Amino acid sequence: MWCSSCGQTSSNHSPRLNRPTGRPPVLLTQIDHVAIAVHDLEAAIDYHRRAFGAEVHHREVVERDGVDEALLRIGESYLQLTTGTRPDSAITTFLAKRGEGIHHIGYRVEDCAEALAAIVAAGGRAIDLEPRPGSRGTTVAFVHPKGSFGTLIELVQE
Amino acid sequence: MWCSSCGQTSSNHSPRLNRPTGRPPVLLTQIDHVAIAVHDLEAAIDYHRRAFGAEVHHREVVERDGVDEALLRIGESYLQLTTGTRPDSAITTFLAKRGEGIHHIGYRVEDCAEALAAIVAAGGRAIDLEPRPGSRGTTVAFVHPKGSFGTLIELVQE
Repeated sequence: MWCSSCGQTSSNHSPRLNRPTGRPPVLLTQIDHVAIAVHDLEAAIDYHRRAFGAEVHHREVVERDGVDEALLRIGESYLQLTTGTRPDSAITTFLAKRGEGIHHIGYRVEDCAEALAAIVAAGGRAIDLEPRPGSRGTTVAFVHPKGSFGTLIELVQE
Repeated sequence: MWCSSCGQTSSNHSPRLNRPTGRPPVLLTQIDHVAIAVHDLEAAIDYHRRAFGAEVHHREVVERDGVDEALLRIGESYLQLTTGTRPDSAITTFLAKRGEGIHHIGYRVEDCAEALAAIVAAGGRAIDLEPRPGSRGTTVAFVHPKGSFGTLIELVQE
Protein backbone atom coordinates (compact mmCIF):
# COMPACT_ATOMS: atom_id res chain seq x y z
CA MET A 1 0.00 0.00 0.00
CA TRP A 2 1.40 3.36 -1.02
CA CYS A 3 0.95 6.23 1.42
CA SER A 4 -0.01 9.56 -0.14
CA SER A 5 1.26 11.43 2.93
CA CYS A 6 4.87 10.33 2.94
CA GLY A 7 5.40 8.32 -0.24
CA GLN A 8 6.45 5.17 1.59
CA THR A 9 5.20 1.71 0.71
CA SER A 10 4.12 -0.67 3.42
CA SER A 11 1.47 -3.31 3.98
CA ASN A 12 0.85 -2.08 7.51
CA HIS A 13 1.66 1.58 7.45
CA SER A 14 0.53 4.42 9.70
CA PRO A 15 1.12 7.89 8.22
CA ARG A 16 0.81 9.37 11.73
CA LEU A 17 3.85 7.48 12.92
CA ASN A 18 5.91 8.20 9.83
CA ARG A 19 5.22 11.91 9.31
CA PRO A 20 8.10 14.32 8.76
CA THR A 21 9.71 15.43 12.02
CA GLY A 22 8.00 18.40 13.64
CA ARG A 23 4.85 18.21 11.58
CA PRO A 24 1.79 17.49 13.75
CA PRO A 25 -0.56 14.66 12.81
CA VAL A 26 -3.78 15.41 10.93
CA LEU A 27 -6.38 14.29 13.46
CA LEU A 28 -9.68 15.67 12.11
CA THR A 29 -11.16 13.61 9.28
CA GLN A 30 -14.44 15.54 8.80
CA ILE A 31 -16.74 18.04 10.41
CA ASP A 32 -18.98 15.39 11.99
CA HIS A 33 -21.78 17.79 12.89
CA VAL A 34 -22.80 21.27 13.86
CA ALA A 35 -25.23 21.33 16.77
CA ILE A 36 -28.00 23.90 16.92
CA ALA A 37 -29.94 24.35 20.17
CA VAL A 38 -33.65 24.93 19.56
CA HIS A 39 -36.75 25.30 21.71
CA ASP A 40 -39.06 23.33 19.42
CA LEU A 41 -37.33 20.34 17.83
CA GLU A 42 -40.26 19.38 15.59
CA ALA A 43 -40.55 22.93 14.23
CA ALA A 44 -36.82 23.03 13.51
CA ILE A 45 -36.93 19.67 11.69
CA ASP A 46 -39.90 20.88 9.66
CA TYR A 47 -38.15 24.12 8.67
CA HIS A 48 -35.01 22.35 7.48
CA ARG A 49 -37.10 19.87 5.52
CA ARG A 50 -39.12 22.58 3.83
CA ALA A 51 -36.19 24.92 3.21
CA PHE A 52 -33.52 22.42 2.17
CA GLY A 53 -35.11 19.01 1.74
CA ALA A 54 -32.95 17.83 4.67
CA GLU A 55 -34.39 14.66 6.19
CA VAL A 56 -33.85 13.13 9.63
CA HIS A 57 -31.21 10.41 9.44
CA HIS A 58 -31.15 9.54 13.14
CA ARG A 59 -33.24 10.47 16.17
CA GLU A 60 -32.25 9.84 19.77
CA VAL A 61 -32.95 10.90 23.33
CA VAL A 62 -29.64 10.87 25.19
CA GLU A 63 -30.70 10.44 28.81
CA ARG A 64 -27.21 10.98 30.19
CA ASP A 65 -26.97 14.44 28.66
CA GLY A 66 -30.67 15.33 28.97
CA VAL A 67 -31.11 16.04 25.27
CA ASP A 68 -33.43 15.07 22.45
CA GLU A 69 -31.61 15.28 19.13
CA ALA A 70 -32.22 14.81 15.42
CA LEU A 71 -29.40 14.30 12.94
CA LEU A 72 -29.98 15.57 9.40
CA ARG A 73 -27.48 14.31 6.85
CA ILE A 74 -25.64 16.98 4.84
CA GLY A 75 -23.04 15.39 2.56
CA GLU A 76 -20.39 13.78 4.77
CA SER A 77 -21.62 15.62 7.87
CA TYR A 78 -24.72 16.08 10.00
CA LEU A 79 -26.75 19.01 11.19
CA GLN A 80 -27.69 18.17 14.78
CA LEU A 81 -30.88 19.84 15.99
CA THR A 82 -31.11 19.46 19.74
CA THR A 83 -33.24 20.51 22.69
CA GLY A 84 -33.09 19.88 26.44
CA THR A 85 -35.28 17.28 28.13
CA ARG A 86 -34.81 18.47 31.71
CA PRO A 87 -33.93 21.71 33.56
CA ASP A 88 -30.32 20.74 34.38
CA SER A 89 -29.44 19.85 30.80
CA ALA A 90 -26.58 21.91 29.31
CA ILE A 91 -28.81 22.63 26.32
CA THR A 92 -31.64 23.92 28.54
CA THR A 93 -29.17 26.20 30.32
CA PHE A 94 -27.74 27.43 27.01
CA LEU A 95 -31.20 28.20 25.63
CA ALA A 96 -32.16 30.13 28.76
CA LYS A 97 -28.94 32.14 28.73
CA ARG A 98 -28.25 32.76 25.03
CA GLY A 99 -31.35 31.67 23.17
CA GLU A 100 -31.47 29.46 20.09
CA GLY A 101 -28.36 29.12 17.96
CA ILE A 102 -25.20 27.17 17.24
CA HIS A 103 -24.15 25.29 20.37
CA HIS A 104 -21.03 23.35 19.39
CA ILE A 105 -19.03 21.86 16.55
CA GLY A 106 -18.33 18.13 16.35
CA TYR A 107 -15.09 16.99 14.72
CA ARG A 108 -14.87 13.43 13.45
CA VAL A 109 -11.63 11.76 14.50
CA GLU A 110 -10.11 8.33 14.07
CA ASP A 111 -9.04 8.12 17.69
CA CYS A 112 -10.86 10.17 20.31
CA ALA A 113 -8.31 9.63 23.08
CA GLU A 114 -5.43 10.61 20.80
CA ALA A 115 -7.19 13.80 19.67
CA LEU A 116 -8.12 14.71 23.24
CA ALA A 117 -4.51 14.31 24.34
CA ALA A 118 -3.32 16.47 21.43
CA ILE A 119 -5.75 19.25 22.39
CA VAL A 120 -4.64 19.22 26.01
CA ALA A 121 -0.99 19.23 24.92
CA ALA A 122 -1.73 22.28 22.74
CA GLY A 123 -3.26 24.17 25.68
CA GLY A 124 -6.92 23.17 25.35
CA ARG A 125 -9.09 22.24 28.34
CA ALA A 126 -10.84 18.89 28.42
CA ILE A 127 -14.37 18.70 29.83
CA ASP A 128 -14.38 14.92 29.59
CA LEU A 129 -11.08 13.70 30.99
CA GLU A 130 -11.44 10.54 28.95
CA PRO A 131 -13.66 9.43 26.03
CA ARG A 132 -17.21 8.33 26.87
CA PRO A 133 -20.25 7.00 24.98
CA GLY A 134 -22.07 9.50 22.73
CA SER A 135 -25.21 9.22 20.61
CA ARG A 136 -25.61 6.70 17.74
CA GLY A 137 -22.99 4.42 19.26
CA THR A 138 -20.09 6.85 18.99
CA THR A 139 -17.27 7.55 21.44
CA VAL A 140 -16.97 11.23 22.29
CA ALA A 141 -15.20 13.82 24.42
CA PHE A 142 -16.03 17.50 24.90
CA VAL A 143 -13.46 20.29 25.03
CA HIS A 144 -14.17 23.56 26.89
CA PRO A 145 -14.65 26.81 24.93
CA LYS A 146 -12.11 28.51 27.17
CA GLY A 147 -8.80 27.60 25.59
CA SER A 148 -10.39 26.88 22.19
CA PHE A 149 -11.31 30.40 21.05
CA GLY A 150 -14.77 30.39 22.56
CA THR A 151 -15.75 27.23 20.73
CA LEU A 152 -17.27 24.20 22.45
CA ILE A 153 -15.77 21.19 20.64
CA GLU A 154 -16.98 17.60 20.58
CA LEU A 155 -14.59 14.94 19.34
CA VAL A 156 -16.50 12.11 17.70
CA GLN A 157 -15.11 8.65 16.98
CA GLU A 158 -17.50 6.46 15.00
CA MET B 1 -26.67 7.85 -16.65
CA TRP B 2 -28.54 6.20 -13.80
CA CYS B 3 -29.86 8.45 -11.04
CA SER B 4 -29.50 7.08 -7.51
CA SER B 5 -32.24 9.42 -6.27
CA CYS B 6 -35.11 8.26 -8.43
CA GLY B 7 -33.86 5.23 -10.35
CA GLN B 8 -34.49 6.79 -13.77
CA THR B 9 -32.05 6.63 -16.61
CA SER B 10 -31.29 9.69 -18.69
CA SER B 11 -28.32 11.32 -20.39
CA ASN B 12 -29.38 14.74 -19.14
CA HIS B 13 -31.25 14.13 -15.96
CA SER B 14 -31.97 16.46 -13.06
CA PRO B 15 -33.13 14.67 -9.88
CA ARG B 16 -34.52 17.97 -8.62
CA LEU B 17 -36.98 18.20 -11.48
CA ASN B 18 -38.03 14.56 -11.26
CA ARG B 19 -38.50 14.16 -7.51
CA PRO B 20 -41.66 12.56 -6.18
CA THR B 21 -44.52 15.02 -5.80
CA GLY B 22 -44.49 16.95 -2.53
CA ARG B 23 -40.94 16.01 -1.58
CA PRO B 24 -38.69 19.11 -1.36
CA PRO B 25 -35.38 19.15 -3.23
CA VAL B 26 -32.13 18.33 -1.42
CA LEU B 27 -30.30 21.62 -1.72
CA LEU B 28 -27.34 21.29 0.69
CA THR B 29 -24.44 19.23 -0.68
CA GLN B 30 -21.98 19.66 2.23
CA ILE B 31 -21.24 21.76 5.27
CA ASP B 32 -18.92 24.14 3.43
CA HIS B 33 -17.48 25.71 6.56
CA VAL B 34 -17.97 26.69 10.16
CA ALA B 35 -16.77 30.21 10.89
CA ILE B 36 -15.16 31.05 14.22
CA ALA B 37 -14.63 34.70 15.14
CA VAL B 38 -11.31 35.27 16.92
CA HIS B 39 -9.36 38.26 18.19
CA ASP B 40 -5.93 36.97 17.16
CA LEU B 41 -6.02 35.12 13.84
CA GLU B 42 -2.38 34.00 13.96
CA ALA B 43 -2.79 32.54 17.45
CA ALA B 44 -5.93 30.67 16.36
CA ILE B 45 -4.17 29.24 13.30
CA ASP B 46 -1.24 28.18 15.46
CA TYR B 47 -3.51 26.46 18.00
CA HIS B 48 -5.37 24.45 15.35
CA ARG B 49 -2.10 23.45 13.74
CA ARG B 50 -0.59 22.28 17.03
CA ALA B 51 -3.76 20.60 18.32
CA PHE B 52 -5.00 18.94 15.12
CA GLY B 53 -2.37 19.30 12.43
CA ALA B 54 -4.86 21.46 10.51
CA GLU B 55 -3.09 23.60 7.92
CA VAL B 56 -4.18 26.79 6.18
CA HIS B 57 -5.63 25.97 2.77
CA HIS B 58 -6.59 29.51 1.79
CA ARG B 59 -6.00 32.97 3.23
CA GLU B 60 -7.84 36.11 2.18
CA VAL B 61 -8.71 39.62 3.29
CA VAL B 62 -12.26 40.33 2.12
CA GLU B 63 -12.34 44.11 1.91
CA ARG B 64 -16.06 44.30 1.25
CA ASP B 65 -16.88 42.52 4.52
CA GLY B 66 -13.96 43.91 6.54
CA VAL B 67 -12.61 40.49 7.48
CA ASP B 68 -9.31 38.64 7.42
CA GLU B 69 -9.93 34.91 7.14
CA ALA B 70 -8.04 31.64 7.03
CA LEU B 71 -9.59 28.43 5.73
CA LEU B 72 -8.32 25.17 7.24
CA ARG B 73 -9.32 22.04 5.34
CA ILE B 74 -11.17 19.36 7.34
CA GLY B 75 -12.24 16.51 5.08
CA GLU B 76 -14.81 17.88 2.62
CA SER B 77 -15.30 21.05 4.66
CA TYR B 78 -13.38 24.03 6.02
CA LEU B 79 -12.88 25.59 9.39
CA GLN B 80 -12.93 29.34 8.78
CA LEU B 81 -11.02 31.37 11.33
CA THR B 82 -11.90 35.03 10.92
CA THR B 83 -11.29 38.42 12.49
CA GLY B 84 -12.44 41.95 11.70
CA THR B 85 -10.21 44.44 9.91
CA ARG B 86 -12.17 47.58 10.76
CA PRO B 87 -14.58 48.83 13.47
CA ASP B 88 -17.73 48.53 11.34
CA SER B 89 -17.09 44.93 10.35
CA ALA B 90 -19.80 42.47 11.42
CA ILE B 91 -17.08 40.29 12.95
CA THR B 92 -15.67 43.19 14.98
CA THR B 93 -19.18 43.93 16.28
CA PHE B 94 -19.78 40.26 17.10
CA LEU B 95 -16.49 40.00 19.00
CA ALA B 96 -17.26 43.13 21.02
CA LYS B 97 -20.76 41.92 21.87
CA ARG B 98 -20.38 38.16 22.38
CA GLY B 99 -16.66 37.46 22.42
CA GLU B 100 -14.86 34.74 20.49
CA GLY B 101 -16.85 31.77 19.22
CA ILE B 102 -18.80 30.23 16.38
CA HIS B 103 -20.17 32.99 14.16
CA HIS B 104 -22.01 31.20 11.35
CA ILE B 105 -22.40 27.99 9.40
CA GLY B 106 -21.77 27.85 5.66
CA TYR B 107 -23.78 25.36 3.59
CA ARG B 108 -22.42 24.35 0.19
CA VAL B 109 -25.14 24.44 -2.47
CA GLU B 110 -25.26 23.78 -6.18
CA ASP B 111 -27.32 26.89 -6.89
CA CYS B 112 -27.19 29.80 -4.43
CA ALA B 113 -30.18 31.66 -5.88
CA GLU B 114 -32.33 28.52 -5.80
CA ALA B 115 -31.41 27.78 -2.17
CA LEU B 116 -32.03 31.39 -1.14
CA ALA B 117 -35.48 31.31 -2.73
CA ALA B 118 -36.28 28.03 -0.95
CA ILE B 119 -35.31 29.50 2.42
CA VAL B 120 -37.46 32.58 1.89
CA ALA B 121 -40.36 30.38 0.77
CA ALA B 122 -39.96 28.34 3.98
CA GLY B 123 -40.15 31.47 6.14
CA GLY B 124 -36.45 32.39 6.39
CA ARG B 125 -35.19 35.98 6.13
CA ALA B 126 -32.59 36.84 3.50
CA ILE B 127 -29.84 39.31 4.43
CA ASP B 128 -28.56 39.36 0.85
CA LEU B 129 -31.57 39.73 -1.41
CA GLU B 130 -29.59 38.12 -4.21
CA PRO B 131 -26.32 36.16 -4.42
CA ARG B 132 -23.08 38.16 -4.35
CA PRO B 133 -19.33 37.42 -4.56
CA GLY B 134 -17.75 35.68 -1.54
CA SER B 135 -14.18 34.70 -0.71
CA ARG B 136 -12.10 32.29 -2.88
CA GLY B 137 -14.22 33.07 -5.92
CA THR B 138 -17.48 31.71 -4.54
CA THR B 139 -21.01 33.08 -4.88
CA VAL B 140 -22.72 33.53 -1.52
CA ALA B 141 -25.82 34.81 0.27
CA PHE B 142 -26.39 35.27 4.00
CA VAL B 143 -29.61 34.37 5.81
CA HIS B 144 -30.62 36.12 9.05
CA PRO B 145 -30.58 34.17 12.36
CA LYS B 146 -34.12 35.37 13.06
CA GLY B 147 -36.26 32.89 11.19
CA SER B 148 -33.52 30.22 11.16
CA PHE B 149 -33.45 29.18 14.83
CA GLY B 150 -30.85 31.72 15.87
CA THR B 151 -28.37 30.52 13.26
CA LEU B 152 -26.62 32.85 10.83
CA ILE B 153 -26.40 30.88 7.57
CA GLU B 154 -24.17 31.48 4.56
CA LEU B 155 -25.07 29.72 1.33
CA VAL B 156 -21.93 28.98 -0.68
CA GLN B 157 -21.86 28.10 -4.37
CA GLU B 158 -18.39 27.15 -5.60
